[in-house]
Amino acid sequence: MSGCPFSTSRRGLLGAAGGLLAGGAALGTGLASPLGRAPAGSVNPAASAVAGSSTADGTVPFFGAHQAGIETPQQIHTVFASFDLTARSAADLVSLLQDWTRAAARLTAGQPVEPLSGTAGRAPEDSGETVGLGARRLTLTFGFGPGLFELDGRDRYGLARQRPPELADLPVFAGDQLDPARSGGDLCIQACADDSFVAFHAIRQLARMASADDAAMGYGGKRAGATVATGAHAGTARLRWIQTGFLPDSPAGETPRNLLGFKDGTQNPGSRHMAEKSGGKLSGNGTFDDVVWVDQGPDWMRGGSYMVARRIRLSLEHWDRTELDFQEQVIGRRKASGAPLTGQHEYDPIDLDATDADGNPLIAENAHVRLGAASQSDGARIMRRTYSYNDGLSMVAERWPPWRQGLEYDAGLLFVAYQKDPRAGFTRMFDRMSRLDLLNQYATHVASGLFACPGGVAPGEFIGQKLFASV
Amino acid sequence: MSGCPFSTSRRGLLGAAGGLLAGGAALGTGLASPLGRAPAGSVNPAASAVAGSSTADGTVPFFGAHQAGIETPQQIHTVFASFDLTARSAADLVSLLQDWTRAAARLTAGQPVEPLSGTAGRAPEDSGETVGLGARRLTLTFGFGPGLFELDGRDRYGLARQRPPELADLPVFAGDQLDPARSGGDLCIQACADDSFVAFHAIRQLARMASADDAAMGYGGKRAGATVATGAHAGTARLRWIQTGFLPDSPAGETPRNLLGFKDGTQNPGSRHMAEKSGGKLSGNGTFDDVVWVDQGPDWMRGGSYMVARRIRLSLEHWDRTELDFQEQVIGRRKASGAPLTGQHEYDPIDLDATDADGNPLIAENAHVRLGAASQSDGARIMRRTYSYNDGLSMVAERWPPWRQGLEYDAGLLFVAYQKDPRAGFTRMFDRMSRLDLLNQYATHVASGLFACPGGVAPGEFIGQKLFASV
Repeated sequence: MSGCPFSTSRRGLLGAAGGLLAGGAALGTGLASPLGRAPAGSVNPAASAVAGSSTADGTVPFFGAHQAGIETPQQIHTVFASFDLTARSAADLVSLLQDWTRAAARLTAGQPVEPLSGTAGRAPEDSGETVGLGARRLTLTFGFGPGLFELDGRDRYGLARQRPPELADLPVFAGDQLDPARSGGDLCIQACADDSFVAFHAIRQLARMASADDAAMGYGGKRAGATVATGAHAGTARLRWIQTGFLPDSPAGETPRNLLGFKDGTQNPGSRHMAEKSGGKLSGNGTFDDVVWVDQGPDWMRGGSYMVARRIRLSLEHWDRTELDFQEQVIGRRKASGAPLTGQHEYDPIDLDATDADGNPLIAENAHVRLGAASQSDGARIMRRTYSYNDGLSMVAERWPPWRQGLEYDAGLLFVAYQKDPRAGFTRMFDRMSRLDLLNQYATHVASGLFACPGGVAPGEFIGQKLFASV
Repeated sequence: MSGCPFSTSRRGLLGAAGGLLAGGAALGTGLASPLGRAPAGSVNPAASAVAGSSTADGTVPFFGAHQAGIETPQQIHTVFASFDLTARSAADLVSLLQDWTRAAARLTAGQPVEPLSGTAGRAPEDSGETVGLGARRLTLTFGFGPGLFELDGRDRYGLARQRPPELADLPVFAGDQLDPARSGGDLCIQACADDSFVAFHAIRQLARMASADDAAMGYGGKRAGATVATGAHAGTARLRWIQTGFLPDSPAGETPRNLLGFKDGTQNPGSRHMAEKSGGKLSGNGTFDDVVWVDQGPDWMRGGSYMVARRIRLSLEHWDRTELDFQEQVIGRRKASGAPLTGQHEYDPIDLDATDADGNPLIAENAHVRLGAASQSDGARIMRRTYSYNDGLSMVAERWPPWRQGLEYDAGLLFVAYQKDPRAGFTRMFDRMSRLDLLNQYATHVASGLFACPGGVAPGEFIGQKLFASV
């Protein structure tokens, strides 16, 4: 043995590798019948109860009218994964989605893709690091990007005509500084859980099921039902980018803060607290049915939603040196309480018409909450499910005095917004925001993704199945 | 307003910024008297009880005979920050350490550096995102790197002769692929907490107290007691690298697993479970007094320890395609139970002499547990306090068939080891390991740091105070 990472033992390993056998078979309980741990109510796709309610044992039902992980009260960790599809045919893609559905049902029920026992002589299907942790409210939310329908003008899977108009590419917004390597993707899976190991574990298992490595590395692995090409670089999807995110583990009932130190999410549609504070009625920002769930267009998107994901870098150094009063003017709320500048408490209404003695608006014309108000943007409403991210340090150089340069936090927001139609939701709202928001001094959008999240999955179905009915 | 991130409002902001005032004064309760929330026992530096025991309200005492965060049962999140010192004099460095001590005492007690109330008109000393979260067992562990004593041959702070021989630079090990930008540093602070927001928040506040930005950005800020140079790029320390880490939130009493899916830390000195399993006696791997705490040499290191930090990238893709049996041979333990290959249960003794019917050792000559055994490395013993890390994807290209290339997980271990003397601890152990360990097929050391963590802090002292007695 030496510093060479692949020495004698590796060859022995390759030679001895018989393969993953028909690993898919070991998973194959999901399709025929609902999983034992999933509550019976969750397997009825017509159930209109709040999707993603967690059960006493920490599981969030995977099957239901809507995908979990959207209305589900936010877990404190996420791993967001975007994939490029490499499947050579619609059949291979369907096979992948079937495998993923089976695995997702197991993982979200707190089960490994395959138990470790009985895997002697081959590589286990499950990497095993979450043994004993339970589901920790794991949800897996799948979205289809534009490239699944059409890539560089090619109709790879015969789906080009199925691309919904809502999935039109986002425009370039003022100030966009998007890194293409961390943007886009043909398909995304967002894992959310109350444990960071559980979230990453789920992505790792699913990515592996789609990867080329079993073929390319010569291990002889073969996904049951999938066509594995004999050449190198087969596989059905490969990871394009991953973004981890986290929330403070705030006391129950409190709106979590973001890295700006402000509460984030007070005004979300269907907010439990908005509802409580309004005496049982939902807030002016509407219900999930009003804002989030698609109720027209193709069958496969009914009960689904469109997801906009943006990686927003925040200049924490700059923000931390900003006076408290100015921070509050930027946001339009008090930092400590979360109250709008026109109120005393977090859930007090935002009075955009209130003025001071001189007639100046109490909430500035370019304050974040004003620009985010539906009344200011032709009724644009979104449901935000945003995490913070912290990726260490990276280089920043300014081109104005004092020409500050050096390492700064690469930290900020993994902003995720759901809506019926991004054109009338995020795009309409952010078009003005990107030009006017005071917060733009501190925030730069550095990556972007747009995904159509199909409606929920019924037992026996696979995720997005109705989309493929015509293929 | 436009896409320009610094427009009219920024100028207004700069003009209006009066500064941070004597922010240090707001902190100044720590030195004169112990904090109210710190249990009385913890403020006695002679107390030899387990440092870092957490109290019912989730606080770990900051003051004590040893620094917290070493013997403290591992929290599930960490933010590890390394700094380059830019202080121009020993006095400025002392002032920084005084400020940091005061702030650390507050932060670890679950208090903000400064409450938000009363900060109108200036930038708050505390960024505020952890309001209401509590201490979440936050510990802040400080370490001094070689550059504090001598940098590029310069004795910057008159401390060159104080550099302990134990702080000799680590040798280059076989297989090292160290990124200097993420290695080393003159000083480190490791924040550990059960909430990722709390850990990052602490580093952010401390880094800001040392940074050049208050001066360089023209905000006019001035740390109480510190000399702030009038030129650009003043400040006393700047962040060099940050590494976040995490553990699974394992059930109480279970050894957490790492991303290889194996339990990690079973054999640590003073392990509670080793003690229980051995009928109340501590394990053969010794106590903290045996292995960790420095009991000779200069006063300032008495009760301290030397920390080796290594960022170890794991090829998860390769590992996941390795047969279970081979994974277990690599480690020398069973994956599911954690038992050594010569036993049935996790805490069974490792029998390095056991052979099979053919006389071959049951635990391979180059298995990880064999090479980590003190008996195999001249008695080298360390206390590991390792986290996993997950930094998304980065490019890997192989130079052998099938010339696989593409994005792979940039994930693995933030390995942290404590010992009385790294030369007789980590270096002695890893010298053989780096050449022989089967795990080297899957593990690459990509960054490294070495720090002298001084003994604990008594109320009225600042961290490392005795080191500066001679200056």
